[in-house]
Amino acid sequence: MTAAEKTARADRAGATRDVILATAERLFAEHGVFGVSNRQISEAAGQGNNAAVGYHFGTKTDLVRAIVRRHTDQIEQLRVRMLAELGPEPDVRDWLGVLIRPQAEHLAEIGPPTWFARFSAQLMTDPALRQIMVEESLTSPSLQQIIDGLRGGLPDLPPPVRRERGDMARLLMVHLLAEYERDLDAGTPVARASWQETAAGLIDALVGLWTAPVTS
Amino acid sequence: MTAAEKTARADRAGATRDVILATAERLFAEHGVFGVSNRQISEAAGQGNNAAVGYHFGTKTDLVRAIVRRHTDQIEQLRVRMLAELGPEPDVRDWLGVLIRPQAEHLAEIGPPTWFARFSAQLMTDPALRQIMVEESLTSPSLQQIIDGLRGGLPDLPPPVRRERGDMARLLMVHLLAEYERDLDAGTPVARASWQETAAGLIDALVGLWTAPVTS
Repeated sequence: MTAAEKTARADRAGATRDVILATAERLFAEHGVFGVSNRQISEAAGQGNNAAVGYHFGTKTDLVRAIVRRHTDQIEQLRVRMLAELGPEPDVRDWLGVLIRPQAEHLAEIGPPTWFARFSAQLMTDPALRQIMVEESLTSPSLQQIIDGLRGGLPDLPPPVRRERGDMARLLMVHLLAEYERDLDAGTPVARASWQETAAGLIDALVGLWTAPVTS
Repeated sequence: MTAAEKTARADRAGATRDVILATAERLFAEHGVFGVSNRQISEAAGQGNNAAVGYHFGTKTDLVRAIVRRHTDQIEQLRVRMLAELGPEPDVRDWLGVLIRPQAEHLAEIGPPTWFARFSAQLMTDPALRQIMVEESLTSPSLQQIIDGLRGGLPDLPPPVRRERGDMARLLMVHLLAEYERDLDAGTPVARASWQETAAGLIDALVGLWTAPVTS
């Protein structure tokens, strides 16, 4: 095989991988990760060989991880850039901004229809699948820096309150974006005209949530 | 048939309906409403006749509605009682209390394991199933009174912000309770020792969320 032939073969393999990833993400978002077989994905991706998913990605877990990684790599780039643009003494709102805006910006950049917000919501509500998301995100030093910064800027809160508000913030980020994506897809009227405005409303609300007085 | 025989037959039918409802709720929460057939429910409920679900409830939508109604009836009783105990001039926190505490109290009364919080979260993320939940809840005058009271107590907010914060409050109520139920079931450490304390933390957070300053 010549060098040119090798390059052409690698290009074809890369294109096949891309098609499989996009098809799998859509099918998972629509029917659930456990409701779709690798064989169905291969067929829907137009692969003559029904074992194409296995050949290119391995197990279903490997495939899910590949979808997650493709998005988190791009979100990471946006996050690093926004983090670099942060002023000298960021407050809670600034930290929440660099936490939430990269995801919204990423979904806006892909353009409709997107599937990743719904796919993420599904992963985050399944204990086994969530682990994949956590592992892929925890490796990000920029995300860790934001979480540390946010913690440092928060008012003094009893540990269970701090933990439950972290849980609430995560649930809101995941499910608000998933619902926005679902509404866009279904043509349901939405409160905000863009992903970026949706993020802005969420940041305002989370500032209130994190700094709310604690009773009882 | 004597009157005593008729009563015995009605009792048996009622007991069968209860077993089917409880079995269906658990299976739906575990595997998804669309992942479980009426036949599987009949079998898991120990019914010799595989058509038992159809005979007692009709379609799957009817069955889902019956599960929802059984819970909303009990939640309604708690809500009416808490509403009657409300002081003369309720503020936002009071209204949020009578909105959220009846559900938490209901789940605490059932005792572990519960399935309704996860089942509800599933309904609320499916456009067709959500309609059932909305229809069963909208008929409650006590819930309408609380929503009106809450609206009247809120600060002046632009309509899209009011709408998105309503969406966020609903998402948090649904998914925080579902996650708490999932963690209890899995033995995962939880931030709060009871449903009632979880509700208290959520009420504090939602006061902050609803009254947060609006930027942009």
